[in-house]
Amino acid sequence: VSEASRSASETAALLVEALPHIRRFADSVVVVKYGGSTIGNTQGAPDGGLASFAQDIALVRSVGLRPVVVHGGGPQIGAMMQRLGKVAEFRNGLRVTDAETLDIARMVLVGKVNREIVAAINVHGALAVGLSGEDANLIQAAQRDDDLGFVGDVVGVDTTMLTNLLDQHLVPVVATVGTDAAGQSYNINADTAAGAIAEALVAEKLIFLTDVEGIRADPDVPGSLLHELSAAELDGLVASRVASGGMVPKAQACARAVRAGVAGAHILDGRVPHALLVELFTDGGVGTMVRP
Amino acid sequence: VSEASRSASETAALLVEALPHIRRFADSVVVVKYGGSTIGNTQGAPDGGLASFAQDIALVRSVGLRPVVVHGGGPQIGAMMQRLGKVAEFRNGLRVTDAETLDIARMVLVGKVNREIVAAINVHGALAVGLSGEDANLIQAAQRDDDLGFVGDVVGVDTTMLTNLLDQHLVPVVATVGTDAAGQSYNINADTAAGAIAEALVAEKLIFLTDVEGIRADPDVPGSLLHELSAAELDGLVASRVASGGMVPKAQACARAVRAGVAGAHILDGRVPHALLVELFTDGGVGTMVRP
Amino acid sequence: VSEASRSASETAALLVEALPHIRRFADSVVVVKYGGSTIGNTQGAPDGGLASFAQDIALVRSVGLRPVVVHGGGPQIGAMMQRLGKVAEFRNGLRVTDAETLDIARMVLVGKVNREIVAAINVHGALAVGLSGEDANLIQAAQRDDDLGFVGDVVGVDTTMLTNLLDQHLVPVVATVGTDAAGQSYNINADTAAGAIAEALVAEKLIFLTDVEGIRADPDVPGSLLHELSAAELDGLVASRVASGGMVPKAQACARAVRAGVAGAHILDGRVPHALLVELFTDGGVGTMVRP
Amino acid sequence: VSEASRSASETAALLVEALPHIRRFADSVVVVKYGGSTIGNTQGAPDGGLASFAQDIALVRSVGLRPVVVHGGGPQIGAMMQRLGKVAEFRNGLRVTDAETLDIARMVLVGKVNREIVAAINVHGALAVGLSGEDANLIQAAQRDDDLGFVGDVVGVDTTMLTNLLDQHLVPVVATVGTDAAGQSYNINADTAAGAIAEALVAEKLIFLTDVEGIRADPDVPGSLLHELSAAELDGLVASRVASGGMVPKAQACARAVRAGVAGAHILDGRVPHALLVELFTDGGVGTMVRP
Amino acid sequence: VSEASRSASETAALLVEALPHIRRFADSVVVVKYGGSTIGNTQGAPDGGLASFAQDIALVRSVGLRPVVVHGGGPQIGAMMQRLGKVAEFRNGLRVTDAETLDIARMVLVGKVNREIVAAINVHGALAVGLSGEDANLIQAAQRDDDLGFVGDVVGVDTTMLTNLLDQHLVPVVATVGTDAAGQSYNINADTAAGAIAEALVAEKLIFLTDVEGIRADPDVPGSLLHELSAAELDGLVASRVASGGMVPKAQACARAVRAGVAGAHILDGRVPHALLVELFTDGGVGTMVRP
Amino acid sequence: VSEASRSASETAALLVEALPHIRRFADSVVVVKYGGSTIGNTQGAPDGGLASFAQDIALVRSVGLRPVVVHGGGPQIGAMMQRLGKVAEFRNGLRVTDAETLDIARMVLVGKVNREIVAAINVHGALAVGLSGEDANLIQAAQRDDDLGFVGDVVGVDTTMLTNLLDQHLVPVVATVGTDAAGQSYNINADTAAGAIAEALVAEKLIFLTDVEGIRADPDVPGSLLHELSAAELDGLVASRVASGGMVPKAQACARAVRAGVAGAHILDGRVPHALLVELFTDGGVGTMVRP
Repeated sequence: VSEASRSASETAALLVEALPHIRRFADSVVVVKYGGSTIGNTQGAPDGGLASFAQDIALVRSVGLRPVVVHGGGPQIGAMMQRLGKVAEFRNGLRVTDAETLDIARMVLVGKVNREIVAAINVHGALAVGLSGEDANLIQAAQRDDDLGFVGDVVGVDTTMLTNLLDQHLVPVVATVGTDAAGQSYNINADTAAGAIAEALVAEKLIFLTDVEGIRADPDVPGSLLHELSAAELDGLVASRVASGGMVPKAQACARAVRAGVAGAHILDGRVPHALLVELFTDGGVGTMVRP
Repeated sequence: VSEASRSASETAALLVEALPHIRRFADSVVVVKYGGSTIGNTQGAPDGGLASFAQDIALVRSVGLRPVVVHGGGPQIGAMMQRLGKVAEFRNGLRVTDAETLDIARMVLVGKVNREIVAAINVHGALAVGLSGEDANLIQAAQRDDDLGFVGDVVGVDTTMLTNLLDQHLVPVVATVGTDAAGQSYNINADTAAGAIAEALVAEKLIFLTDVEGIRADPDVPGSLLHELSAAELDGLVASRVASGGMVPKAQACARAVRAGVAGAHILDGRVPHALLVELFTDGGVGTMVRP
Repeated sequence: VSEASRSASETAALLVEALPHIRRFADSVVVVKYGGSTIGNTQGAPDGGLASFAQDIALVRSVGLRPVVVHGGGPQIGAMMQRLGKVAEFRNGLRVTDAETLDIARMVLVGKVNREIVAAINVHGALAVGLSGEDANLIQAAQRDDDLGFVGDVVGVDTTMLTNLLDQHLVPVVATVGTDAAGQSYNINADTAAGAIAEALVAEKLIFLTDVEGIRADPDVPGSLLHELSAAELDGLVASRVASGGMVPKAQACARAVRAGVAGAHILDGRVPHALLVELFTDGGVGTMVRP
Repeated sequence: VSEASRSASETAALLVEALPHIRRFADSVVVVKYGGSTIGNTQGAPDGGLASFAQDIALVRSVGLRPVVVHGGGPQIGAMMQRLGKVAEFRNGLRVTDAETLDIARMVLVGKVNREIVAAINVHGALAVGLSGEDANLIQAAQRDDDLGFVGDVVGVDTTMLTNLLDQHLVPVVATVGTDAAGQSYNINADTAAGAIAEALVAEKLIFLTDVEGIRADPDVPGSLLHELSAAELDGLVASRVASGGMVPKAQACARAVRAGVAGAHILDGRVPHALLVELFTDGGVGTMVRP
Repeated sequence: VSEASRSASETAALLVEALPHIRRFADSVVVVKYGGSTIGNTQGAPDGGLASFAQDIALVRSVGLRPVVVHGGGPQIGAMMQRLGKVAEFRNGLRVTDAETLDIARMVLVGKVNREIVAAINVHGALAVGLSGEDANLIQAAQRDDDLGFVGDVVGVDTTMLTNLLDQHLVPVVATVGTDAAGQSYNINADTAAGAIAEALVAEKLIFLTDVEGIRADPDVPGSLLHELSAAELDGLVASRVASGGMVPKAQACARAVRAGVAGAHILDGRVPHALLVELFTDGGVGTMVRP
Repeated sequence: VSEASRSASETAALLVEALPHIRRFADSVVVVKYGGSTIGNTQGAPDGGLASFAQDIALVRSVGLRPVVVHGGGPQIGAMMQRLGKVAEFRNGLRVTDAETLDIARMVLVGKVNREIVAAINVHGALAVGLSGEDANLIQAAQRDDDLGFVGDVVGVDTTMLTNLLDQHLVPVVATVGTDAAGQSYNINADTAAGAIAEALVAEKLIFLTDVEGIRADPDVPGSLLHELSAAELDGLVASRVASGGMVPKAQACARAVRAGVAGAHILDGRVPHALLVELFTDGGVGTMVRP
C-alpha cells in the first residue's frame, strides 16, 4: 500500500491516533509468545511469516518498547524424533519425556528453532540474543510427575539476565528449558513459561501469537470472537471447556498474569500480517484481550 | 476519520512506514519556527490552528523528539502600537525601532504571544516553558545599524539553558529578543533567530511553518512547488528574486543551517492541519525541503 | 567607604562575624519578594535602587546561596491601563480583573517588569531567567470569586523547574501569573505567591523588601519597630489591625511560611542600600523577623 | 590430599607464592578454549573431567578473574551425523559443510555441547550463560571457499555482549557459529575463534586445554616439551611441520594473539586435573607458554 | 620452600582449598591488633617479625581484603619514660597517666611505633596511612576515673575516615589515642579500641596477634589450646580467671565483637611466620577462634 | 568589636568588598605554612595564638576554601633533644641528623606538634587529619648530603591522599618528614615542603605565617615593608642578601611556586590576629605578596 492510496488527512488521523499509544508503551516490557505451529503459517507469506514477525519485533523495539520473545517448538521436536527413529513412550496414558527425548528436545529448541528466530530478527541489526531457560538461573523448574520423566513446572524466574539485556536494548529470545537446583534440566510448556516470565517482569503486556483468531464464545462459530474478557470470565470458559486443548495453558497464563499485575494479556491471530503492530498501536486492537 | 474507514492492512502499512521515522528521530532536536501570521490562519480551525499546532508539538515530544518552538509576532506588535497611538518612525526609508517601540515589542512578544503559545501547549501537561532570548544569555545580539535603533543581529547563541530544558523533556518556547554585552536588548528577526538556534543546537531539522505552501519555481503558479532543493539552488532563487519578501530570511536561514550541519530544513504550509506530523513521520513529506 | 577608614581589627572582627553566616546559608534557598513599589524608591539611588538590588542578588548567589526573586508590578500595570484608556471596573465595590485587564497585567508583568529585573541581574553575568507562574505548572491557581474575574488563589506549586534552575546556579525571577487545570490564567497576589513558593521549596528564608522599615508596634511611631515576632504574635497584630493594608498579605505569608518549615521570615526596608546583605550576613539584622 | 599432609610452613610458602598471582590477574580476562576431544578425557575422572574443569572455571571467577569459555564439538557432531545417516560429502578432497550439515552442527554445538558445559558450571551457582557466535553480532564470518559450503572465517568480533556479561560477573560459554551480514550462518574453527575473541578482548591470557602435554621439540619424544616460545619460534615450528595437524590452528592463534596484545598464550594438557589453576597461580606453570 | 618440593597435585589441592576462602573474604574488613610486645618477637626473624607481618598485610590487601591495623606500644612508652627520667605515679595502687605521661605516650605511639609499622608496610607500595584516634573524630573517649588521669574509655567510633581510606584501597594504621568533646586526649587500651573499631565497621574478622599460642584450657599446659569457643564460654574463662592479665581485655573484646555482628574473632600466635595468612586462607586455622 | 561600633553603611561596604573574594576562592586550595616559632607568639593571645589560627582555618574552610596546613617544629625538637641529653653533632661545620636525632624529630613533629595543631582545629568540629609526609607516599625524599645524615630534599609529592581528604572537606595537617624508595625517612625543611605541596596541588595561594611583618627593603627599617614583588625581584633580594637566614627558603619557595602556576604567594605576620582572613578577604591585604 503506497502512501498515494491514503489521503493526507487519513494519514494525519492515524498518526494522531497511534502516537499516544507509542508514547504510552515507551520502555514497557512486552512478552510475546511465538508458537511453534505459528511458524510457517502466516497468510500469503512464502517463508511462513517468520520474517514479518521478526520485522514487527524489530519495529516495536525501535520505538522504545522492550519485547521479550518466548517460543515453543513442538512440531519441530516431533519431526526430529521421527527422523532419529525415536518412538514416543507412554505411561498411564501420558507421553513420557525420557533423558534421550529431553536431549533431543533441547537440541531442537535451543540449537534450531531458537537460532532461526534469532537469525530472522538479526537481519535488522544486532538485536536478538538466544537464551535457554537454563542460562544464569532464568527458569527454575521442578519435576511435575516422576512418571512423566523430565517434564517440569516453573517454580521461579530470575529476571536479572533479561533485565540486563533489555537495558542494553537487546531482544531476549527464550527457549523454555528449565533447571532444578541440582542442575537437572526439564522441558517446560512454553505458554506457561511465557506467562511466568511476564509475571516476573511485571510486563505491560503478554501477547500470544497463535494460529486461531482468539477465544470464541462458541469455538465452532467464526463470528463469536470475544473481544474483551475479565480473568474471572476466562476461568469460567476454561471450567466450561469452551476453552480447551492448547488454549487452556494460554488462558490460564493470561488469567494468572493479569492478576499478578500485567496490565493486559492478549490472544491474537499470528497468521495476520503485523497483527502485533495493529494491536499495540491503534485504538481498536484485534483478537481477545484479557483484563484484570 | 475513524479506524473503521481504514482497512487493517492499510493501517498496518502506515505503521510499518511511520515507525522507522519515529525511531530515526528519537532524541533529535527539531526547531520549529511558528510565524506570527500563521496564528489564526489554519484551514477550518475556529481558533486559527493554535490548538492543533500545540497538539502536534505535544505529540512529537511524547514520542521522544525534542522540539524547540521559536515564534515571531509582527501583526500582534503592530496592533498594540496602533492601540497605544504610537506612530512608526522611518529613517532613510527604513522603519526605526526606538526605545519605546522596543519596549512595546518586548511586552507583546514575551508577555502576550509567547504566553499564548505556552498556554496552548500546556493544555497537554506541564510541558512548555516560555523564554526570552535575554534569559541566561540565550541570544547574544549586536546592533545592526545605528539609524535603525534597537534592531539586532544574532552574534551568538548560548544553548546551555535550552539543552537543560530539553533534557528535562520540556519544550522551550522562545521569543526572539536578544541582548548585547552591556545588557541592551534588541528586537531580532524570528526567522533568523530560529536558524541560529538550530545551528547552535546542531538540530536534526529546522522547520518553518508559514502561510504559503512552500517555495515555488514561479511564485504565481500554484502547481510549481519545489519539493527538494540544495542550499546552492536556494541561493540562486534568492539572487534571482524568485524567493522574495518575507521568504528571504527563511531561505537564508535554511541554506545557512544545512551548511552548518542541520540535516534538513523545511518550509511547510502551517495552515494544513498536522502538517508537522505528516512531514516528520511519513516517507512523502510536504512543502519544500532544503538539503545540504 | 574605603578600607582605610576601618581599622584592621574592625575588619577582622566583621569577617569573623560574617563568615559563619555565609557558611550557614551555603546552598540555602532564599525567596526574596521585590515589590513593584520598591522599584524606584531606594535612598539616593538615581535608578531607584534596582541596580543595587541586582548586585545584592548576584553577590548572595556568588557565595553559594540560592536566591529566588518573586516580584509584583501594581504601579506599572496601573500606568499601562491608564495609557490604554482602560477604566477599572468594580463589582460589589471590588475591583474586577476582566479578560482584557488580565491580558494587560500579564503583558506588563511578564513582558516588562520581569524583563527589567532579569536584565539588571544579568549585567553581572548570565545568571537570571525570567519565568511566569504559568511555565511548567509552576503556580497552580483557582479562581477566587466569580465576581472578581481572573483573580486567583494559589492551590499548588510545582518546584521542579525552580529546583532545576537553582541546581544550575541560575536565579529564577518569577512573575506571579498562575493557571488552572483548564489552562486559564489568573493574576495572583505577589506576596502570597512568594510565601507559597518559599513553603514549597522549604526555603531557609522568606524576605519581603518593602518601602517601610518593618512592622511597628504603633504604625505611626517611627521608634516602635518590632525586631522579632512569633507567628502567633503576628496573627494578633493582623487581628487587631496594627498590621493593615498591604502589610496584611505579607504578614499572613510570613506566619504561614514559618509554620510550614521556613526557618525565618523577614520584612525589611528595601530602600536602605544592601539591606539584604546586612540582614543575611551580620548578627544584628534589620527590620522585623518572624520566627516559628 | 588433606591439609594434615602439608606442614604449616609449606602451606604458608605456597600462599605467599600464589597470592601475588591472584592479585595480578584480578579483573583480567582469560579466554579458555575447551576442546571437544578434551571432554571425557581427563585422568581418573569418571565423568571425563568436565566437572573438574567446571570447578576450575568457577574458582578462577570467584577470585576475580573474568573467564570466557570457547568450545568445539567435532566428535559430538560426527556422532550425530552418523546417527542421522548423513554421509560426509567431499569436494576436491575436502570435506563439505552443506546446509543440512550446518544445521546439524549448530544443533549439536549450541543445543547439546554448549548446554552441557553451561550446566556443569552452573552447579556452582548461576554463573554461566551459553552463547552462539550468532548472538548480537558476536562472531562476524565470511565464507572461506564456495566449494566447502558453510565453513566460515572470522572477519570481526563484537565484544559488547561479552563485556557486558563479564561486567555482571557471568561466564560466557561460546559455541563457534558465526554469521555474515546477510544473516547466513557458518561453522567456525573453535581454535581460531578463541584466538580472535582473545584478541578482540585484549585478554590477559589465551589458554588451550588440549589432550596433549603441550608442544614438543620432537612430537614423538615425551621429554621434549617446550616450556616457553616466542611467536617467531612458534611460526618456525609450524613452517617446519614440527607442529602439525590440529596443533596448527592452535599455534597460529597463539602467535597471532600475543602479537595483538594478549600477554601470554598457553597450550596445556587438559587431562591433568586443575591444570588451569596450577598454570595461573604458581610460579612454575605447566605446558607450553607463548610470549610476544 | 620451592615449588619443586611440592607435588603438582598437592599444589592443586591447596589452591582448591584456598581459593574459596579468598573469594569469601573479598572486600571483607579484617581488623588486626598488632601488639607492642609482638614487635621484635617472631621466631627466627632478625627484625623481630615486623617485615613478615607487613608482607602479610600487603598480601591480604592485594587479594581484595580490607585490613585495618590497630597497635599498642606499652614497652616502647615505658622505655621512653625511663629515658626521660619520668617516674610512674600511683594512686590507690593504680598507675596514673598525668598530662606529661599522656604527652610522652602520644609522642611514642603516634610519632614512633605507628611510623615504624606504616614504613614497614609501605615498602610494598604506597599502601598504609598512619592515624591517631584523634583524627577526624575517629575514637571518641571519656575519662575512666578522675584518679587515673588521662586514661579513657571508648564511647564512640566515627568510621567515616576509615571507610574512606579502605575505599581507596589504603591500609589505616591506628594509634589508640582518643579525644572527648572538649578536645582533651586520652590514652586508650589498644585491645579494647581494636574491638570497638571492629564492631563499628561490622568487620568480618577481629584478629589479635599476640605472643602466646591462643587461649589454653590450662594456661600452664602447652597442649591444652582451645581451638574454638563461644562468647559465653569465653565469659566463663574470664570469670574463672583461666583467662587473666593482658588476655582479659582481648577476651572481652572478642566476646563483645562477635555479639555485635563480627563474624569471627581470633587470638593467634603472632610469633609464627605468616600465621595471619594460614588462619585466613586454609580450612584449618591456628590459635583460638571465638564464634558468636 | 561589637557591631554597634560600625555604621550599617560601613558594614554593607565591607560585605560588598569581601563577598567577591569569598566567591573567587571557593574550592581554591590554600597551602598555609604555620611556623614552629609562630606558635606561642601572637599578640595578646594567652595561648600564643594557636586557637586564633585554628579558628581562621576553620572559617576559611567553612566558606568553601580548601586549606592545607604544613608545619615545622624546630624549637620543640630542640627542647626535646636537650631534655633527652642528646648533644648536637657537627660535621664540616654543619649540624648532623643522625638516626637518633631523626627518631626524636619525627616523634616530636608527628607525635606532638602535629597533634596539637590538629586538636586545636578539631575544637571546631571533626575537621582536621594529621599526616606525616611518609603516609601514602605523600613526600618523596632523597638524601641531601651523606655527611648531614638524614636530612632530605623533596623529589616528589603524591597528592592523591591530600586531594581525597580535601574532597571530603577535611583539613590535612602535614608534618614534613619524607621517605625515599627504600623506605628510609628524612627530616625535610618545612618551608620547602610547603612550597612543593603548593606546586603539586597547583594551589591558588601559598601563605607563610611567620614572626616578621613580611619582607623589607631594608630588614632593619620597620617602614620599608615591600607590599608586592615579582619572582625575579625576589631572586634579586636573596642574591643581594636582603632576604637572609630563615627567610631564604621561604623566599625561594615563593618564587618557585608562582613560577609553577600558584597564583599568589604571601609572607604574612602570623602574630597579627586573623591576618589570614584579612589577607584573603579584603582588597588590601597585609605583608608581602609575590606575583608570577
